[in-house]
Amino acid sequence: MAASPILLVGSVALDELHTPAGSMLDAFGGSASYFSLAARFFAPVRLVAVVGTDFPASHRALLESSGVDLRGLEVADGPCFRWGGKYGDDLNTRETLFTHLGVFEHFHPKVPDVYRDSEFVFLGNIHPALQKEVLSQVRAPKLVALDTMNLWIETARAELLDVLRAVNLLIVNDSEARQLTGESNVVRAGRRLLELGPHTVVIKKGEHGAAMFAAGGVFAVPAVPLDHVVDPTGAGDSFAGALLGSLASQGDLSDGGLRRAIACGSVLASFTVQAFGLERLQSVTRSEIAGRFEELRHLTHFDATTPLPGA
Amino acid sequence: MAASPILLVGSVALDELHTPAGSMLDAFGGSASYFSLAARFFAPVRLVAVVGTDFPASHRALLESSGVDLRGLEVADGPCFRWGGKYGDDLNTRETLFTHLGVFEHFHPKVPDVYRDSEFVFLGNIHPALQKEVLSQVRAPKLVALDTMNLWIETARAELLDVLRAVNLLIVNDSEARQLTGESNVVRAGRRLLELGPHTVVIKKGEHGAAMFAAGGVFAVPAVPLDHVVDPTGAGDSFAGALLGSLASQGDLSDGGLRRAIACGSVLASFTVQAFGLERLQSVTRSEIAGRFEELRHLTHFDATTPLPGA
Repeated sequence: MAASPILLVGSVALDELHTPAGSMLDAFGGSASYFSLAARFFAPVRLVAVVGTDFPASHRALLESSGVDLRGLEVADGPCFRWGGKYGDDLNTRETLFTHLGVFEHFHPKVPDVYRDSEFVFLGNIHPALQKEVLSQVRAPKLVALDTMNLWIETARAELLDVLRAVNLLIVNDSEARQLTGESNVVRAGRRLLELGPHTVVIKKGEHGAAMFAAGGVFAVPAVPLDHVVDPTGAGDSFAGALLGSLASQGDLSDGGLRRAIACGSVLASFTVQAFGLERLQSVTRSEIAGRFEELRHLTHFDATTPLPGA
Repeated sequence: MAASPILLVGSVALDELHTPAGSMLDAFGGSASYFSLAARFFAPVRLVAVVGTDFPASHRALLESSGVDLRGLEVADGPCFRWGGKYGDDLNTRETLFTHLGVFEHFHPKVPDVYRDSEFVFLGNIHPALQKEVLSQVRAPKLVALDTMNLWIETARAELLDVLRAVNLLIVNDSEARQLTGESNVVRAGRRLLELGPHTVVIKKGEHGAAMFAAGGVFAVPAVPLDHVVDPTGAGDSFAGALLGSLASQGDLSDGGLRRAIACGSVLASFTVQAFGLERLQSVTRSEIAGRFEELRHLTHFDATTPLPGA
């Protein structure tokens, strides 16, 4: 079957990245950029976002040449959203150096008419009231997925809980899951999140992989072991992009389809962190992705023979 | 085939445990106790350890009724080894309250003649010079596994590196792997450890599961997701016990045999942490173990179909 397009709303940004491996200024970033460049291998992406007048033509050209539909990319008067971050030596801590919202501050997402029939919707990490605005402009979505962040959990909790009631798939990291539920145990947090609306909750755990919670049970996948991580920026967004892409590509929302989609997410995230910014997502090939998917399968496989004498 | 017996040297102790769920005084503990009660489901255990004259008869009876061969359990003049620990609210931090070595201070393990033909040897977490003494008393081991701890890495590094040259399987936790190699990245740490002697290195990561490194590649298994952890004490020792037990039970040291053994380790560790001390390891049944093994297999399974359109 043909892959369904994914309607994506999120941020497009210029990043300043500092990691132990080096620094990168004016890096093309933003959650929607990472999402798009991972999802494109699986399904077409329809972008809803805003950039400033300083958005480089080369960045737009990259999205275009990646097949991303830019009819929903608004250009507003003012500067692009800019974010700066600095990672600690072990890459497990990150300090935000600055956040300049620029044109993002007054962004109200407008879904172009030609996007309104989208069956797969990803509400990237923007204010939950804006996420709801987007959703209200889509006719009959088959799957609505949502990402959020600590800022909205703290400052817009009611709006977040409101939009969550209309969401099928929640994708958050472990600290956000704990913060949103007040549960320190990830299994209990996952179960509590299922009571908020979504039928499926995916909790990302960085280098420790990801877990899916649903009525049918739990799925866990480790991260692909890497001997060298250059820049963790965008790993979670790439994960979400490949996850949604896999679902939209196959139209299979069963437990098995979700598991395969999460494995795809883990694979694309593993490529992202091997270079600065979007570099590796630009260069990675289909056969490299298929190869690493097989590597992940082999990584986690063990024989199901009952191991107990006499059991 | 019949399971081979495992020669085990380690500590038998009386523990004082404080966790957010409560406290337990004079708990039957020690690495060898947890190891034995997990391994016994898979293979016979031959224990080499020391206890003091204050070692309760009921603890000895528990080991005996679990089928542990106690001909190598020395009773020395003096008090038992005692350890006290207190866990933080999220169970991820542990403070050692006291360590009273007692009879353990002057322990020199003597391997009974009837144990010397053991093919599977587990050198539990004691001074590396003593681990070597034990190994020198075994005739022709087929598999030698070793555990160690931060204390020996700091204070007896040369002796540890010496005994490691005669070890096939190293089982350590992630912080020990980093400390021993100076590598913060776990994949690089695993590779470096393989250069020290062992053909297989298993790195335990607590709630994040475990990973195996060997010439043939990497295997990763998540921890069984638990919604309630009571007491993490002995999880790593139970893991090692079931791992060695599975290997000794099946005599299969292939990549597949090792993967299955590590999965068994993850399963038994998951039972251990669900109650205080050795409680759950005493009550767990073969069918519960087989059931959770199947749960772990289902937890990690995903379909291998190539997920990429056109790949």
